[in-house]
Amino acid sequence: MKKHLHDSLPPYLKVENEELWLTEDDRENLKISYRIKEVIFSQQSAFQHVMILDSYDFGRMLVLDGVVQTTSIDGHIYNEMISHIPLQLHPAAKKVLIIGGGDCGAAKEAAKYQQLEQIDMVEIDEVVVQSCKEHLPAVSGNLSDPRVRFIYTDGVAFVKERTKEYDVIIVDSSDPVGPAEALFSRDFYASIRQALKDDGLMVCQSQSPIFHLDILKQTHTNIRQLFPHAAVYTATVPTYPGGLWSFTIGSNIPLSLPESAAVPTDTKYVNEAVLKQCFQLPEFMRKAL
Amino acid sequence: MKKHLHDSLPPYLKVENEELWLTEDDRENLKISYRIKEVIFSQQSAFQHVMILDSYDFGRMLVLDGVVQTTSIDGHIYNEMISHIPLQLHPAAKKVLIIGGGDCGAAKEAAKYQQLEQIDMVEIDEVVVQSCKEHLPAVSGNLSDPRVRFIYTDGVAFVKERTKEYDVIIVDSSDPVGPAEALFSRDFYASIRQALKDDGLMVCQSQSPIFHLDILKQTHTNIRQLFPHAAVYTATVPTYPGGLWSFTIGSNIPLSLPESAAVPTDTKYVNEAVLKQCFQLPEFMRKAL
Repeated sequence: MKKHLHDSLPPYLKVENEELWLTEDDRENLKISYRIKEVIFSQQSAFQHVMILDSYDFGRMLVLDGVVQTTSIDGHIYNEMISHIPLQLHPAAKKVLIIGGGDCGAAKEAAKYQQLEQIDMVEIDEVVVQSCKEHLPAVSGNLSDPRVRFIYTDGVAFVKERTKEYDVIIVDSSDPVGPAEALFSRDFYASIRQALKDDGLMVCQSQSPIFHLDILKQTHTNIRQLFPHAAVYTATVPTYPGGLWSFTIGSNIPLSLPESAAVPTDTKYVNEAVLKQCFQLPEFMRKAL
Repeated sequence: MKKHLHDSLPPYLKVENEELWLTEDDRENLKISYRIKEVIFSQQSAFQHVMILDSYDFGRMLVLDGVVQTTSIDGHIYNEMISHIPLQLHPAAKKVLIIGGGDCGAAKEAAKYQQLEQIDMVEIDEVVVQSCKEHLPAVSGNLSDPRVRFIYTDGVAFVKERTKEYDVIIVDSSDPVGPAEALFSRDFYASIRQALKDDGLMVCQSQSPIFHLDILKQTHTNIRQLFPHAAVYTATVPTYPGGLWSFTIGSNIPLSLPESAAVPTDTKYVNEAVLKQCFQLPEFMRKAL
């Protein structure tokens, strides 16, 4: 199995001095290389090349078209931040939609909220979900909660057909190239708003404030124009270029944290203090937005 | 000049497909490679190999023994965080000592405080200071403030001979290997306390909470045992591995921010909101400390 996989290495996996290295090739002038113990899973899906690799420094990682999406070591930071913040902001969410999020980490975090009745997870690529469920349990948690419905279809088309259905929508996309490109368009956010209840709110990942401040600004502008309330928060995700990452919220209701937040006790990154501080932006972001 | 420098490239600078790349070689299983436009300065000092490189994504950068220390793009984050936080916490600092900080960025930030009368900068390697002053103005600010005294000597020896002299001491060291190793010892922090006035406080960079939580914990333990008051804060520094970076404060006075902080207006990262949130630690750090 291992030998077979190594026989036909994709261009971003190279053997150097008998060591296997993954080099992210999506940026022109910056490369991050991870030493890899083993290729656990490798398959070209209908949408992208899906790999689960076991690395020395970050444990197992999900890699799509050569770009690291999430790892056993730091996947929880991103997934906790994209899930707990909106779920803390909504006073009484019952029905949640996750668009993307194929690593199942956002669904795993959302499932920690007992008051939720339904978590719809719409991911275009079933290969991502199945490979993460099987080979990336540190992130996916081998999700078997009966409230989670897996729907393998195009998130853009799915959300267009929904009206006032969800309390919270989490847009957990990959970078705005390839399958996720449409998830950064203004039309898509308009559909999202239509799919939300009158007191609903949404969150999306809005890229690196260091390297893609333009995308963050455009996303924030779109959402601010479409929703009565908008806000940006940040977290540090070690395996994303630049470390600092942004999330943008659009809401039909004023955004305020509960007096005493009830963050689930088994988080590794989010706590009450993080909840309160994550909306405090560095000066260059405050000025840009 | 350029040709001459390229003739004898150090092992961490390589030409690939006619492109020049710097690859940080200090970690075994993770490599970050920066595409370089030009080697601006390269000299073996008595202590280390000092380079100023012009990179595509991060502008000019200071590189010591192949490891990126600071860049034009994000140097201000680290330097603002290691300077403004302690200077905001001290109610009336007059005399500041910076140990290390050869890129002059911490001195540049400290000099923004008009009430300071003297800023002693003790750096072991004059080549670092001179090359940054000449070739890295985005970080050093071509520092010519007459209150800044440059002292080129061993910080450990210097601080041992001082008693109750400084209001604020900033330990701006490189990683705890090579010349900076002694700057992470308990004895050194004890000397620091002796060099502080009765109402003085110190800060040091205490490494990545992701990759070197052990160093942060040890530093925090040492400082907590030596000082009546201690605290840890974080910032995201894109060019440091893991992005998330920690700083530890030891203080002779209780740590409290002023009601309305007067952060200098020309900062790019620190503002009142950042001041208040930076002590709010992610859950894994809170548990570890």
